[in-house]
Amino acid sequence: MSAHQHRSGRLFGLGVGPGDPELITLKALRLLKAAPVVAYFVAKGKKGNAFGIIEAHLSETQQHLPLVYPVTTEALEPPLCYESIIADFYDTAAEIVAAHLDAGRDVAVICEGDPFFYGSYMYLHDRLAAGFEAEVVPGVCSMLGGAAVLGAPLVYRNQSLSVLSGVLPEEELRRRLADADAAVVMKLGRNFDKVRRVLGELGLAERALYIERATMANQRIVPLAEVDPMASPYFSLLVVPGEKWQG
Amino acid sequence: MSAHQHRSGRLFGLGVGPGDPELITLKALRLLKAAPVVAYFVAKGKKGNAFGIIEAHLSETQQHLPLVYPVTTEALEPPLCYESIIADFYDTAAEIVAAHLDAGRDVAVICEGDPFFYGSYMYLHDRLAAGFEAEVVPGVCSMLGGAAVLGAPLVYRNQSLSVLSGVLPEEELRRRLADADAAVVMKLGRNFDKVRRVLGELGLAERALYIERATMANQRIVPLAEVDPMASPYFSLLVVPGEKWQG
Repeated sequence: MSAHQHRSGRLFGLGVGPGDPELITLKALRLLKAAPVVAYFVAKGKKGNAFGIIEAHLSETQQHLPLVYPVTTEALEPPLCYESIIADFYDTAAEIVAAHLDAGRDVAVICEGDPFFYGSYMYLHDRLAAGFEAEVVPGVCSMLGGAAVLGAPLVYRNQSLSVLSGVLPEEELRRRLADADAAVVMKLGRNFDKVRRVLGELGLAERALYIERATMANQRIVPLAEVDPMASPYFSLLVVPGEKWQG
Repeated sequence: MSAHQHRSGRLFGLGVGPGDPELITLKALRLLKAAPVVAYFVAKGKKGNAFGIIEAHLSETQQHLPLVYPVTTEALEPPLCYESIIADFYDTAAEIVAAHLDAGRDVAVICEGDPFFYGSYMYLHDRLAAGFEAEVVPGVCSMLGGAAVLGAPLVYRNQSLSVLSGVLPEEELRRRLADADAAVVMKLGRNFDKVRRVLGELGLAERALYIERATMANQRIVPLAEVDPMASPYFSLLVVPGEKWQG
């Protein structure tokens, strides 16, 4: 660490918000514009949502550093081979970023939503923050973007909020949703049908609100009963708002 | 509703972020600057955190509309008389805001953090959104600001996040914290001692991180064991990050 102290570049994890380019913070935008290297995780052959959000702010002198996932993670259940492939990928990505930092160049890693809220940036941070100066700029996460667009106040007073992944086993989903004052279920995709079934069993289907790609240009709000479970995208979420407090 | 449709002002709930004035979004700032009336909830005799965050952006032509709480809510356990006092207060605040909207003036209600995440704006929204055009701009909430400053990735992959109020009874706190993959406890204040005791009993004291006034100028990070339970402010929070995933 001390060997780097004087000449190394700085690592920035910049939350760029849930999709609407105007939902970036002043701070993330300032640091983004100042960074000589702009890195982002992206699926093979895609531009990437985070990159699309900030693209208009980049200048020609900034280097783009796409970190391309080795496989489409959505298509795999988590067997050991996936775990090792993705761990190797994050190791390699961290080495690529570290090479820039070692050369004295700041690297801004742009993150859809918030960097520390289910973001891939966390795997770089865990590998690099001990050896380099690292700063994280929080962002508006997708669940707050979704609640805002749905016009759904999320949690009142002393209510508890449970943020859940649609990937959870059905029994665990049921238990956690039954115990929640308010809930958000993320990572729906092909888990949608299971989640909708559980909400129905718990009598929560009336309260639940569904949104796809909240705040993005192609945002869609669909009544729960009308969602096609085969076509629910990864960037969709379910919100079960807390019961209104009439204070 | 239709009588208002053509001439009424619009209601905006603007998240202004957790404290650092640079953590406001471009969208909230644009709508703030354009609003003829800027409203905010505030304790009697205080300037208000939300107002302090955005004060530098206001012009002389904008009208300030402080909505002053009738009592210091922090000093009261919730008996019925508090409930009715605060309900009356929100009714009156909504009427004051409605008068501006009826007169055709847009009103921007500024909210620390995010408007729909434990924000007082929700009580205006619930009273006014059916009768007036209302738009909510999400903001960076304090728990994400806190996690960023603490350098603590919050939730990995399919971990569940439990957001809890320190006001909860000890037994419920214990049950919910024991069941959480990752947790954030807000509204500490004089509940701090109870929460620390529960974390200790559950073996979570080592993992828990404490921060006061995250991202504000007077932010303080204190080791859990060293926090003075009599001096923990309302704007403090505890973060129990999810176990790191080494992928």
